Amino acid sequence: MKFICQRNDLSQAIQTVSKAVSSKPQNPILSGIYIKAENNMVELQATDYEMGIICKIEAEVTEPGNIVLVGRHFQEVVRKLPGVTIELEYDREEKITHIRSNRSHFKFISMSADDFPIIKKLNSNLNLQIMDNVLYDLIGRTTFACSNEEARPVFTGCFMELRDSTVVMAATDTKRLAVQSKVLENFTGQSKMIIPSKLLNEIQKLLLSDMPRMVNIRYNSNQISFEFDNTYISSRLIDGQFPDYHRVVPNSFATRIKLNTEEFKAVIDRISLISRTNDYNVATLEFANGMLRITSDNPEIGNADEALPAEIDGDNIIISFNVDYIADALKIIHDKELYISLNNSLSPAAIRMVEDEEFTYIITPVRTPGR
Amino acid sequence: MKFICQRNDLSQAIQTVSKAVSSKPQNPILSGIYIKAENNMVELQATDYEMGIICKIEAEVTEPGNIVLVGRHFQEVVRKLPGVTIELEYDREEKITHIRSNRSHFKFISMSADDFPIIKKLNSNLNLQIMDNVLYDLIGRTTFACSNEEARPVFTGCFMELRDSTVVMAATDTKRLAVQSKVLENFTGQSKMIIPSKLLNEIQKLLLSDMPRMVNIRYNSNQISFEFDNTYISSRLIDGQFPDYHRVVPNSFATRIKLNTEEFKAVIDRISLISRTNDYNVATLEFANGMLRITSDNPEIGNADEALPAEIDGDNIIISFNVDYIADALKIIHDKELYISLNNSLSPAAIRMVEDEEFTYIITPVRTPGR
Repeated sequence: MKFICQRNDLSQAIQTVSKAVSSKPQNPILSGIYIKAENNMVELQATDYEMGIICKIEAEVTEPGNIVLVGRHFQEVVRKLPGVTIELEYDREEKITHIRSNRSHFKFISMSADDFPIIKKLNSNLNLQIMDNVLYDLIGRTTFACSNEEARPVFTGCFMELRDSTVVMAATDTKRLAVQSKVLENFTGQSKMIIPSKLLNEIQKLLLSDMPRMVNIRYNSNQISFEFDNTYISSRLIDGQFPDYHRVVPNSFATRIKLNTEEFKAVIDRISLISRTNDYNVATLEFANGMLRITSDNPEIGNADEALPAEIDGDNIIISFNVDYIADALKIIHDKELYISLNNSLSPAAIRMVEDEEFTYIITPVRTPGR
Repeated sequence: MKFICQRNDLSQAIQTVSKAVSSKPQNPILSGIYIKAENNMVELQATDYEMGIICKIEAEVTEPGNIVLVGRHFQEVVRKLPGVTIELEYDREEKITHIRSNRSHFKFISMSADDFPIIKKLNSNLNLQIMDNVLYDLIGRTTFACSNEEARPVFTGCFMELRDSTVVMAATDTKRLAVQSKVLENFTGQSKMIIPSKLLNEIQKLLLSDMPRMVNIRYNSNQISFEFDNTYISSRLIDGQFPDYHRVVPNSFATRIKLNTEEFKAVIDRISLISRTNDYNVATLEFANGMLRITSDNPEIGNADEALPAEIDGDNIIISFNVDYIADALKIIHDKELYISLNNSLSPAAIRMVEDEEFTYIITPVRTPGR
């Protein structure tokens, strides 16, 4: 195998596929990146058996072939090489891969491509097309609400429901729920699946380029694949029944409050300096007389007491929340103002965006002594 | 106690003294910052018994007094408060300190100032004045060569020698040595001392403001203090005999090489991708025919082979070094070119700056098989 390619192209492709290189591989070959050169294209692959990524770049291939290099070393060296182009050549006798760029010359001990579990592209008629920025929001506004507890796999994934011209993503760790829906053009059909949040987070990092582009999604009952530009990512789906999250979303609210997002963020940020040190990271929100007052106590440190103007439409109310659950939502809300909707101190509340009615975030209040 | 001050002033002062707040205090009071208000000044103090820092700011003091607050919480809250000014008030009955800024109100459980080990300012006639940028270079170009091994305390400090109009700082971990000398104006006398490198690193971070300023240093046989602007820092000196480092610096060199600093840095950076994974982080440098060729091997990964132009004045030479020892020097050399001076494969080498002859860095070569 021998080829010359642009260093930037190769470095970018290595970075993309390396998301699927396990840091603690079950099998040494999984620490590697598979490289195949033919027809003036170089294909890279990496997989941890759960997720697989393929990335293709153009190259001047003078000798077709394939090989596997340890991902970490390959990535670091290519990133730092001095030249605009890179020459990569496998010496079959020495079992060494030469990488040359300007005056730099690295030799890497190589693994046989025969041992690599080549990624099989998902073959399914079930598919949809979605713009990268739409998928970016669907992922970014829901995955943060997933659970990290591997013991209950269903909650470590995002539920995706396709119903004719609508896609809904929902995620919950049972204490809070994030739901985002979007209109899909040119789609008919009905499907439900649970996608690993780890996969979605990696995909989100690769989305959003300068040029808007279409992402092709294919799926069957246990696998899903995403394809855009020169990149293909596939993963198993999570097995199980996602709970009926609609039941958690109240039909109506007695009180709706409008807050300035930046002011609210700053207050929550300071409150958390005290609340994060108490047992349940709890703060109490009191909506009354055009103000939101937020307090949090820690018997060992002291107390925080903050206030900000609030446009209150409905009854006054006192309610307590885990501050992290509020802070998480504020990380993804970039509108100037936001809504909080409430019924009473013991019922779930909603945080919504002023500019996008298709997003809903539900948080369960914390029952505090005396209420 | 009650005062109003600028939030930025207080935040800056807390950040300065917090360098002396131990993360694992021997005694709970040492996790605190001592605050004293009187005569329209607020003084903050922190100490870990080894190092002590005092910082003063202007304030509108309406009730003099003193108190101790837990450093970490005090620092985080003041940094994030919304207002331009801050009001701090100690309520003696509740033993609570109120901190108010705009609509924010924090209450902190407080410790008694009577329990705090007040820092005594060092009283000594032995003193010198030095410009902050001169001290900055003396510290920055030597401390990196200190040892971290607490078992041999002498090598964890920087040796400072004052001799009439010269100050010399020297640091070594026995495998490499960094020496920087500077001319001192208005100083006569002779002194030698070993200053903890941890102290010097903290001081260096506080130096270099927009306006050049004088640092006043006082010392006796076991303590040293640094005073500049509103800041006073004192520390014990390290007890012991610093080795005669002059013996390590060769009187002459057979070969002197001039290299482009940026090119050399880039090559060393890439070489270390391979060398850092071998047992002694070793690379071999071969100076010949107007080129420096650097190679490093790792039997489990592969090999790196780099080259860059070198202006060689003297004999050709092959020599091996610990790559980290070279990389450390390159972090502090900002001149366009640098010198490497050598005698033979087994003798210490020197790295020098083209622009500053008062800096010398000596590294011991690594003996490799076959040489």
